[in-house]
Amino acid sequence: MSVLQEISSDVRNMKQMENFVLFRRTNEIKEELRRGVRKSYREVIDVSWGDPHRAGVKPLSFVRQVLAACLYPELMDGDKLMVDVKQRAQRLLGTCAGGSVGSYCATAGIPQILQSISQYIMRRDGGVPCHPENIYISPGSQWALTNILKVLVNSEASPRTGVLIPVPCHSTTIISLTTLGAVAVPYYLREERGWALEMEELQRALDSAKGVCNPVALYMINPGNPAGYVQSRKSIQEVIRFAAEKKLFLLADEVYQDCVYGKESEFVSYKRALAEIGAPLSDSVELASFHTASKGLMGECGLRTGYVELVNLDPAVMKHINNLFSTNSCPILGQIALDVMVNPPQPGDPSYPLYLKETQHIRASLAQNVRRVEEVINSFPDFSCQPLEGGAFAFPRVFLPPKAIERAKEAGLQPDTFYCLRLLEEAGVLFSPGTEYGQKEGTYHIRFCIMTPTDTMEEILRRLSAFHEQFMKEFS
Amino acid sequence: MSVLQEISSDVRNMKQMENFVLFRRTNEIKEELRRGVRKSYREVIDVSWGDPHRAGVKPLSFVRQVLAACLYPELMDGDKLMVDVKQRAQRLLGTCAGGSVGSYCATAGIPQILQSISQYIMRRDGGVPCHPENIYISPGSQWALTNILKVLVNSEASPRTGVLIPVPCHSTTIISLTTLGAVAVPYYLREERGWALEMEELQRALDSAKGVCNPVALYMINPGNPAGYVQSRKSIQEVIRFAAEKKLFLLADEVYQDCVYGKESEFVSYKRALAEIGAPLSDSVELASFHTASKGLMGECGLRTGYVELVNLDPAVMKHINNLFSTNSCPILGQIALDVMVNPPQPGDPSYPLYLKETQHIRASLAQNVRRVEEVINSFPDFSCQPLEGGAFAFPRVFLPPKAIERAKEAGLQPDTFYCLRLLEEAGVLFSPGTEYGQKEGTYHIRFCIMTPTDTMEEILRRLSAFHEQFMKEFS
Repeated sequence: MSVLQEISSDVRNMKQMENFVLFRRTNEIKEELRRGVRKSYREVIDVSWGDPHRAGVKPLSFVRQVLAACLYPELMDGDKLMVDVKQRAQRLLGTCAGGSVGSYCATAGIPQILQSISQYIMRRDGGVPCHPENIYISPGSQWALTNILKVLVNSEASPRTGVLIPVPCHSTTIISLTTLGAVAVPYYLREERGWALEMEELQRALDSAKGVCNPVALYMINPGNPAGYVQSRKSIQEVIRFAAEKKLFLLADEVYQDCVYGKESEFVSYKRALAEIGAPLSDSVELASFHTASKGLMGECGLRTGYVELVNLDPAVMKHINNLFSTNSCPILGQIALDVMVNPPQPGDPSYPLYLKETQHIRASLAQNVRRVEEVINSFPDFSCQPLEGGAFAFPRVFLPPKAIERAKEAGLQPDTFYCLRLLEEAGVLFSPGTEYGQKEGTYHIRFCIMTPTDTMEEILRRLSAFHEQFMKEFS
Repeated sequence: MSVLQEISSDVRNMKQMENFVLFRRTNEIKEELRRGVRKSYREVIDVSWGDPHRAGVKPLSFVRQVLAACLYPELMDGDKLMVDVKQRAQRLLGTCAGGSVGSYCATAGIPQILQSISQYIMRRDGGVPCHPENIYISPGSQWALTNILKVLVNSEASPRTGVLIPVPCHSTTIISLTTLGAVAVPYYLREERGWALEMEELQRALDSAKGVCNPVALYMINPGNPAGYVQSRKSIQEVIRFAAEKKLFLLADEVYQDCVYGKESEFVSYKRALAEIGAPLSDSVELASFHTASKGLMGECGLRTGYVELVNLDPAVMKHINNLFSTNSCPILGQIALDVMVNPPQPGDPSYPLYLKETQHIRASLAQNVRRVEEVINSFPDFSCQPLEGGAFAFPRVFLPPKAIERAKEAGLQPDTFYCLRLLEEAGVLFSPGTEYGQKEGTYHIRFCIMTPTDTMEEILRRLSAFHEQFMKEFS
């Protein structure tokens, strides 16, 4: 029971406390640099977020042009914008009340955009049917997840509602769970096997919940965040069969579905894998899949937009979900970005060459960053990075010397937070500590965004290497 | 107790049910018109929302130009945009991580924009101090209100937490309250006195809560929604003294603060009125004031942005509020719109002449609509519209004949919903029924947005008049 308790409540407080230390110091250092205090670096590189634009990645022109044209349609008068930009903007404005992106829309989202999303999902899944009425657009995928959890979690139940979550797991989901009064039941991904999801571990986790809580759902993140794995079709189907047998609702965080770069990796959606299993499972296993415009190549976090697709839900539950989603609607501009995301320029379109060039550039930079991160990190004996296959992060393990762990304890910090704080202080690079995501006891990790320009990543690795060597020497 | 119960739970269900009937029929009629079914009208005019763009009001160019330039900075290369647009966009991009509106920001909002808002509030309030750290930007003002309510409402308390709310009141607040497990304690505005807020009625409402719930807060809407009143300074100060005496937290919905048109009316903020009372009240009465970019002349509902300013809150409570607001951040583009809202073009700026022309046009249209609505509505003996002084709505009382009330009951509808449904059916105009907002028993109202182009309002009034005459004849 102690592990469950620890994950459920302490992680939340811990995250806030440990993050606070890092954020506060980052702001102080920035202020010191502004005041001219001399350091070994001129600016802090902050790759602690999953935020490509912050890290220097350029937004995609087509997305921004369509958004700008929708906001200020007079731009379409001149010849500054390509004809397909204008056509797209005109079509989308036609779906807005009063022809303005400043209007309210239906709470599930603009119907024509829901339609575009459903067509994208069908194409993605090789023709598996998708109905727009099962999709809800929301201000960010996390908001959608919280709504679905509200339906699954009975905050007054005794024993409490449980949800199986991977370790490591990005912390927003853990916060959502604990805020709703649910118990997060951790299942550990096997780091040594590329963060594999193993069925025995799922079973162990489920067993561990006995007498503690009533597990109703299983949450997966694929591609991984913070760990950059991509689940195989076989692994996904095993998980689905497990969920079917144990009557668990599947929550699939698939926000990095466009971000797969492992040579042998392929993104397979839980929905597709479920359909491929066939009846009766394909008609009965309940699934919610989440996606967003914040991640992937687009990286438009600032627009706050995501969606959820629901599969095999009871109509009575759908009605309840409908009510929940009716309490807020998603920003219109975010919805427009979703339309572009699921329906980008195609070969032959005037905007296609530039779109291709920009996306190829991002993909190529990412591929190079992946190669360099693996190479540099694994060149240190006390660092270990599993193969990076997808997502936007590296989550290497750092083998901290006992003296460093001791010093961290004296400072009242988790050892990996201590490491990150020193890295920030001495090298001006902000990572986030594994503590924030959960990790096997006695192991320590650091997370950083690898979706950056290549020269930024080189600078990060240069600073990290120099710091790491020094740090290890100090505490050896 | 029955009144409290009625407001607390039934209104919510009622609203959903009654609205559903109207929305469903609206969609059906639109579909029929598309299919070529002949009716006495060619399109449905939907003024049931507080959504000026939907009603045909044009967005303000300066707002849209700045947003477009921030989204697609290449636009600043040419000479299509005024220099002050470019300067503003450049300054705002400078506040975004990585110089992109696609990045995440601090959860309270972009610091420089919080600063702009605080300066606006100080100017508005004649120099009463305002600190940026007391302001939280959120995805809509309703979201901010819900967060504040989460702090005030103890969902497990017995007796339950009570919040005094006006009747009529826009329904989103009632839904937020009841969802959180609070009891909405209604105080009735005196329609015959221009929807005045009377202190005896506040006292009566508070007394009515005895034995039912524990009232902790008092919610006011000024300027009014749905009723278009504007509170006087004297009335506001009376309310503040009442709150101080009864130890009630003040929740001031001031989202229509830029929308005051009554000849003798002036917007006075609760914060300013509180400061003018002086110590000890000005240092002790707790107040939350809400504003948004969705309303007023800007009307950018689609951006989903608002803010709350908190006054005199205990630091421990502020910390809790800080945590609540950290679960979601507001779309960056909405924040940029807020910056423009609180800091519009000034005389001498290149964009000022167009800005002035556009805002004057909206104000002049609104003034004319107000005059015409009062004139036409009050020309009917069985209609009564109180003077419209502020906000975006008319909320006239309609004296329905007993036969119409009888027929509504047969149809399982509230009488004013029945009226709205017939108006929709026969005249193609969508209003919302008073039922949705609460009203004195036995009285019936209709609400509609008056922020429309003048020709649209003439068409609405023409259709309404013809319908109303016919309806009254039918049921006389």
